[in-house]
Amino acid sequence: MGLTRRVREILDGYEGESAGTKANLARVLMAGRLGGTGKLVILPVDQGFEHGPARSFAANPAAYDPHYHYSLAIEAGCSAYAAPLGWLQAGADTFRGKIPTILKLNSANSLARQKEAPDQAVTGSVADALRIGCAAIGFTVYPSSDAQYAQMEEIAELSREAKAKGLAVVIWSYPRGGDLSKEGETAVDIVAYAAHMAALQGASIVKVKLPSAHLENKDAKKIYEEKKIPIATMAERVRHIVQCCFNGKRVVVFSGGAAKDASSVFEDARAIKEGGGNGSIIGRNSFQRPRADALKLLDELMRIYQP
Amino acid sequence: MGLTRRVREILDGYEGESAGTKANLARVLMAGRLGGTGKLVILPVDQGFEHGPARSFAANPAAYDPHYHYSLAIEAGCSAYAAPLGWLQAGADTFRGKIPTILKLNSANSLARQKEAPDQAVTGSVADALRIGCAAIGFTVYPSSDAQYAQMEEIAELSREAKAKGLAVVIWSYPRGGDLSKEGETAVDIVAYAAHMAALQGASIVKVKLPSAHLENKDAKKIYEEKKIPIATMAERVRHIVQCCFNGKRVVVFSGGAAKDASSVFEDARAIKEGGGNGSIIGRNSFQRPRADALKLLDELMRIYQP
Amino acid sequence: MGLTRRVREILDGYEGESAGTKANLARVLMAGRLGGTGKLVILPVDQGFEHGPARSFAANPAAYDPHYHYSLAIEAGCSAYAAPLGWLQAGADTFRGKIPTILKLNSANSLARQKEAPDQAVTGSVADALRIGCAAIGFTVYPSSDAQYAQMEEIAELSREAKAKGLAVVIWSYPRGGDLSKEGETAVDIVAYAAHMAALQGASIVKVKLPSAHLENKDAKKIYEEKKIPIATMAERVRHIVQCCFNGKRVVVFSGGAAKDASSVFEDARAIKEGGGNGSIIGRNSFQRPRADALKLLDELMRIYQP
Amino acid sequence: MGLTRRVREILDGYEGESAGTKANLARVLMAGRLGGTGKLVILPVDQGFEHGPARSFAANPAAYDPHYHYSLAIEAGCSAYAAPLGWLQAGADTFRGKIPTILKLNSANSLARQKEAPDQAVTGSVADALRIGCAAIGFTVYPSSDAQYAQMEEIAELSREAKAKGLAVVIWSYPRGGDLSKEGETAVDIVAYAAHMAALQGASIVKVKLPSAHLENKDAKKIYEEKKIPIATMAERVRHIVQCCFNGKRVVVFSGGAAKDASSVFEDARAIKEGGGNGSIIGRNSFQRPRADALKLLDELMRIYQP
Amino acid sequence: MGLTRRVREILDGYEGESAGTKANLARVLMAGRLGGTGKLVILPVDQGFEHGPARSFAANPAAYDPHYHYSLAIEAGCSAYAAPLGWLQAGADTFRGKIPTILKLNSANSLARQKEAPDQAVTGSVADALRIGCAAIGFTVYPSSDAQYAQMEEIAELSREAKAKGLAVVIWSYPRGGDLSKEGETAVDIVAYAAHMAALQGASIVKVKLPSAHLENKDAKKIYEEKKIPIATMAERVRHIVQCCFNGKRVVVFSGGAAKDASSVFEDARAIKEGGGNGSIIGRNSFQRPRADALKLLDELMRIYQP
Repeated sequence: MGLTRRVREILDGYEGESAGTKANLARVLMAGRLGGTGKLVILPVDQGFEHGPARSFAANPAAYDPHYHYSLAIEAGCSAYAAPLGWLQAGADTFRGKIPTILKLNSANSLARQKEAPDQAVTGSVADALRIGCAAIGFTVYPSSDAQYAQMEEIAELSREAKAKGLAVVIWSYPRGGDLSKEGETAVDIVAYAAHMAALQGASIVKVKLPSAHLENKDAKKIYEEKKIPIATMAERVRHIVQCCFNGKRVVVFSGGAAKDASSVFEDARAIKEGGGNGSIIGRNSFQRPRADALKLLDELMRIYQP
Repeated sequence: MGLTRRVREILDGYEGESAGTKANLARVLMAGRLGGTGKLVILPVDQGFEHGPARSFAANPAAYDPHYHYSLAIEAGCSAYAAPLGWLQAGADTFRGKIPTILKLNSANSLARQKEAPDQAVTGSVADALRIGCAAIGFTVYPSSDAQYAQMEEIAELSREAKAKGLAVVIWSYPRGGDLSKEGETAVDIVAYAAHMAALQGASIVKVKLPSAHLENKDAKKIYEEKKIPIATMAERVRHIVQCCFNGKRVVVFSGGAAKDASSVFEDARAIKEGGGNGSIIGRNSFQRPRADALKLLDELMRIYQP
Repeated sequence: MGLTRRVREILDGYEGESAGTKANLARVLMAGRLGGTGKLVILPVDQGFEHGPARSFAANPAAYDPHYHYSLAIEAGCSAYAAPLGWLQAGADTFRGKIPTILKLNSANSLARQKEAPDQAVTGSVADALRIGCAAIGFTVYPSSDAQYAQMEEIAELSREAKAKGLAVVIWSYPRGGDLSKEGETAVDIVAYAAHMAALQGASIVKVKLPSAHLENKDAKKIYEEKKIPIATMAERVRHIVQCCFNGKRVVVFSGGAAKDASSVFEDARAIKEGGGNGSIIGRNSFQRPRADALKLLDELMRIYQP
Repeated sequence: MGLTRRVREILDGYEGESAGTKANLARVLMAGRLGGTGKLVILPVDQGFEHGPARSFAANPAAYDPHYHYSLAIEAGCSAYAAPLGWLQAGADTFRGKIPTILKLNSANSLARQKEAPDQAVTGSVADALRIGCAAIGFTVYPSSDAQYAQMEEIAELSREAKAKGLAVVIWSYPRGGDLSKEGETAVDIVAYAAHMAALQGASIVKVKLPSAHLENKDAKKIYEEKKIPIATMAERVRHIVQCCFNGKRVVVFSGGAAKDASSVFEDARAIKEGGGNGSIIGRNSFQRPRADALKLLDELMRIYQP
Repeated sequence: MGLTRRVREILDGYEGESAGTKANLARVLMAGRLGGTGKLVILPVDQGFEHGPARSFAANPAAYDPHYHYSLAIEAGCSAYAAPLGWLQAGADTFRGKIPTILKLNSANSLARQKEAPDQAVTGSVADALRIGCAAIGFTVYPSSDAQYAQMEEIAELSREAKAKGLAVVIWSYPRGGDLSKEGETAVDIVAYAAHMAALQGASIVKVKLPSAHLENKDAKKIYEEKKIPIATMAERVRHIVQCCFNGKRVVVFSGGAAKDASSVFEDARAIKEGGGNGSIIGRNSFQRPRADALKLLDELMRIYQP
């Protein structure tokens, strides 16, 4: 299957990357119902690790089974499916070749004392990702955490290895810890900074949270106001984030956070599309609904992203 | 000897694992009196390390000798025998090939100041396990300890090496440390979380403590109550744990803790069986009894697990 | 193209360095409008990492695009272009062979809590620098930081590898942290010390800030006064720094700091030239101006450095 | 020379060890005047490191010379001579092949601030031990120190390497640090625990201090009293330690501590013999005496151990 | 050129060292005006790193140039020249083969906050020493620093590598940090201890400061007094240090510290000679004088050491 013009255009921005990395990024961009449009909907399932099994799956007990998520993502036509090693591998034979997968290499859990140096445990490796046939590795960095430099050094090494072996790299860039306020974690200046740093660190796909209009950093606030950077609407904020990802040369997807009603999910997606973002990464809002509802929601979501 | 249908079924859940790892898991599942039933009784002897020799063996002085435990486990028809390097190796020639062994790679001791960052020393290696003919490595993680991420990274590496070399991996997942209360260490939400994370970390066999009906985490409590997850009886709680282990696709065994009367041991086992758990890991309750009593207790225990 | 006498003279000071390292230093010294003069103007763009994208690029939005800086540096006739991995690589194909590049291996960000142990994350490697065709690696050390010895050990290793593979090494030596006062960060005794240590650490090019006439260290102050070391004018201070770089045997360039008016930039350059310094490294003062202004400023700057 | 029945018996307890390790243990057990009896007297000289040269050697200035100790140990007919790298190597050519040597791999010094995390510096390696012809490596662990797990991980690695290369391993297991009281350092429950853990860690020879009748740990105390474990006399306590070393399957030697009168040394030895211990490791009590006195003391000591 | 009897005698004390290490030690012992006498005068220039350039070189500005020191050492007939990587390498081509060089592998600087854990940064490697043709590596250990064990482990590894590759090893053993008082840093018991530990760590050449008659450690003081160890004069103290260096079997040189008048330098040297020490390591007292004065001082110094 040939690549679409839009996908070729996107890939052209990835100068200096190995052919393998570009091929795997292309696999993700050409997969599922949005394949070829330059838009993406990714299913991530690391909530079992992050919040525990009952808080993640009791709302829809079929989701206790790792096969459920593969099959949901495939039926819905998602672009990729991301999960930690044990969970992803538990369907690696059954669903081989049916959807690009992303091995989430590090994970946190809510038993840990977060505080000023939130961190994650690295539980998978590039060799694992290759062994179970993934298209990419995924890694969370917490910019502003007192552990951020150590995390950046981890992903720098993992990324180097992954790309040398032809994998793409997805960075979850989630400001947290240090002196950052709770509100600051989604402040538009901070999210823009986090997205920019993910791109600087070599992310093939940048993943950030949808930003609020709050401005956290005093020095940054002055610039945003002085230069009148438009950040009033969500679409404007998304456009700003896209600009901060190498002027739109990096794929950037947004997560919606905790479960909410479908209309909010759609509203977010419309803003992402309008702002030029590449799509959504949607976990709890899909698998915590009954399967039929989830499929309906994902169907509607993808319709929004269709050109 | 061919595998039973039940064992083949269990192995089918281990997608993506190496043939060697599955073969060694099969060795354990086919060994001893419960061989082929999908049920397990494992003898672990790391109490000398954990609590000191007199507290462990003075009740039954024959147990000061490392041969005693091999011979007890073999005569009783246990599925496997687990111990730290020095202890396990001290019978490795005499009892070679008679029972699958699990090399416990890390150990704590009661001279250490536990507190908020309980940890263990890694005293064995995968190379040691292979050299003395083990079927699996064993490793303790303390979820909620301030050292948990470091421990998870240790077992991630050891597990990768073990599986590449065809060994199975047993994770002791024991919540402890950090902000966790004493009661919380066996709270059902916490044990379920610990079991789920052991599976996510790639455990071939998950080992947790039998949970109480206590709910520790506020956010989790809300879900358990809202979704009316049945946790009133021990059998229900075991069933919940089993569900949290990839919907029953991972072997999970339960430890009973400190020595107690035989009837409590049997009651626990009946609950484990009823809840769909795979068996017991029983140390002090066996080797701290006189040999004849221990054999009688293990005989009765295995009868309970027989289909 | 043959080397000029001045460049040969400079290279002669680099005893014991590999032929590759000298060749790459020569590449930088022979490149651009100042090629062959022994003078340098380098464009560094790590401000996106250091201060965030909006604070760096909103003043001149074309600069959000990584291609912009390559093209600016090339059109202006700069000697080299320095940036972190993601940013530098994003133009590595398009601009290959057109300007020597320096891969900045470590980066800080303003979300980090600096304090007494400021540090940076190592996000690139020597292998990356080779892969994307760089002439040199760049690395920041913060002498006086509680993290300085760890940083010195990092660059010692990276430098050894870089030189063995024929790359040149640029050290940004910026005193910061520990007991050092804010004023002390640019005190002439401290900057001289920082420059000398960069040379001792094997820097092919030493990069420091322009020093003030302040003397920070009491023991040093006594010597400066007793020996009447001339440090009243900027040119005198530059001359002292040059002397502290192996009596002028090491290339040393100066950074001007935050954006300011063009005349200050030129005044600095005239002092650098008069004091025998090798040139300027000029980031925000170039790319935060509209392109035409930036080109004009760089043109004037290079005219000053012309012999 | 053939092995005696007693030595063969002892070696039989070392299941799973490499032939080389058993051969080197046999070398020690067959050396000197006690060769073949299963008893040992070892000369250790690490006091120069531990307490400084004057405190160690001024009492007998001939002992400032490293040759002195080799020659004393050989003339006295000791089973082995143990020392740190620099000291041991300084006689390695002159005395080659004349007495089995043990390279003490780690050393502390009294300039260090001990406190709650006493530790030692690793100053030698397995490669050094092989290079200078040693029969074994020696290593100190401080159970109860906050550094104990790190130490256990060091010796686990060193031991693995040593045994793979055919050397024996001697562990000095000296409880110290953490919450342990001074009296607790030689409490019989703690020494028994320390000896047991040394065996669990794979020691070929366990080295502990002679225990007092004090019971430190409350939980242990209960057991000792309840089970009426005999610990009233030194011989009984030695017997208990021997039992805790795999029921007598591990060689265990005792150190006497600071210099004292000869009759106390002999009294200790008679208790060690009566309790079934394997011998003494005797440093300051030998080399801090004039040579003739030392030889007389060692002669008498070995007579006691003779069967 | 054949070795002198005195040098052969000295080398005989270095049992177990590689032929290459002994050959390089011989190179140093046979070099310069004192060649063959068993006495040494070494020029060390690490003051630029330790105290900054102006404090080191402003007194004699010619010394800002790295060539100056090579040429001074060669003209004066020194036994060896020691400096950190950047500085030493800067004359490695010009002065190749003219004087044995010692690569100082670690360096501190006065911007660092010393306190209780003084340390140094390792800025060079054994590979660097080999590459630029050195005869030895040099390394500073601060016994009593809270960082001392880590430093000892660093030099243990570096020393093992250096000796395997035929280099000699010089240890600067300077007590500092921890609970040690300022006066204690040069107390004779502490310097003797530091010298002894350097020898235990395998130093080919031990370098300590000239000791005062102060006794720092209470337990040691008792012994010095009880055994009436003669420490009243400098020559007696030197003789004691020599004894503590394996009874004179290790080469030990003394540093004089800060610049002072020539007569004090000569007085020290006479005491060193009388006490049986092997010589002086003299930095600031030589290169901070005008060249002619320095040559005169070094000439007189060597005359003193001549037999």
